[in-house]
Amino acid sequence: MDFDLDRTIAVLERTPGVLKALISGLGPELTRGGYGEGAWSAYEVVGHLIVGEREDWIARAKIILEQGVSRPFDPFPHDAAIHPDSGRELDQLLDEFTRLRAANLEALRSFRLGPAQLALRGTHPALGEVTLAQLLATWATHDLHHIRQICKAMAWQWRDLVGPWRHYLNTLSSEQRA
Amino acid sequence: MDFDLDRTIAVLERTPGVLKALISGLGPELTRGGYGEGAWSAYEVVGHLIVGEREDWIARAKIILEQGVSRPFDPFPHDAAIHPDSGRELDQLLDEFTRLRAANLEALRSFRLGPAQLALRGTHPALGEVTLAQLLATWATHDLHHIRQICKAMAWQWRDLVGPWRHYLNTLSSEQRA
Repeated sequence: MDFDLDRTIAVLERTPGVLKALISGLGPELTRGGYGEGAWSAYEVVGHLIVGEREDWIARAKIILEQGVSRPFDPFPHDAAIHPDSGRELDQLLDEFTRLRAANLEALRSFRLGPAQLALRGTHPALGEVTLAQLLATWATHDLHHIRQICKAMAWQWRDLVGPWRHYLNTLSSEQRA
Repeated sequence: MDFDLDRTIAVLERTPGVLKALISGLGPELTRGGYGEGAWSAYEVVGHLIVGEREDWIARAKIILEQGVSRPFDPFPHDAAIHPDSGRELDQLLDEFTRLRAANLEALRSFRLGPAQLALRGTHPALGEVTLAQLLATWATHDLHHIRQICKAMAWQWRDLVGPWRHYLNTLSSEQRA
């Protein structure tokens, strides 16, 4: 598949609705449980997506567009999330994510990116040179990765309830970390 | 987590909306590609969910309620799906799945299941005795498993587009089959 900006945006703008359909209004039994030691719950995944909207994707796109490879991205910690004891409800996080994503896609559209801009490069602090198209493709893929992770965290809570069917569902395997 | 019928239904009734939010209207580049040899695309996963609604979950629940362990379930092939060359559009499949799921949840509610019914047993052709509660827990978990699989199939199409970020996203690992 070739990179296509419209297709990338089409996926990015779906994620808030996917998350709401999947977890909005569900109780803590399914949304606050992880899938093993240190593994995130749905709540923490949404928190992680919020931090990315605030600090990662568009901030890095702007660095590429304005400063190129000369100014490396700020490191973005893989484990940045919102703590389960933040006192905030999951639905508040979903609303914040929805707002941030809409604003970030508006910013992205305002860049009016063409092939020349999409080929521009930035410097990732660990990975080295990357293109703007790679950054945007990663943004969309990262969404799908974390929707997957929420499904795993939810499925995990049924792990002891499915009885012998557990052997048929590799989602319930502890070998897959996400 | 204890088994709770309302919580199980809450997840089951969300799945059509989750799938529509995730893939309805997206093009074949993202919905017709699998993630390796023999791995399903989003299209085939939706087809598989349809076959399950037609032949598996409620049919087995009825066998448990009406015949107990004496009448084993019919085998349900893991790989039952709708062929990509069926001539049907993905959105038609999503609509069919939505209708079937709604009808099946109406049937499930009409059973007015209490603890005594949920503890009733049936005979799985390969796994042996299972309870009705385990069957219903598996139905919901199976949904989450396959939503996950769709996310993987979609993410996979970006595999060559994310550049060096590929190493950060284990969703793009070929070691995880779903």
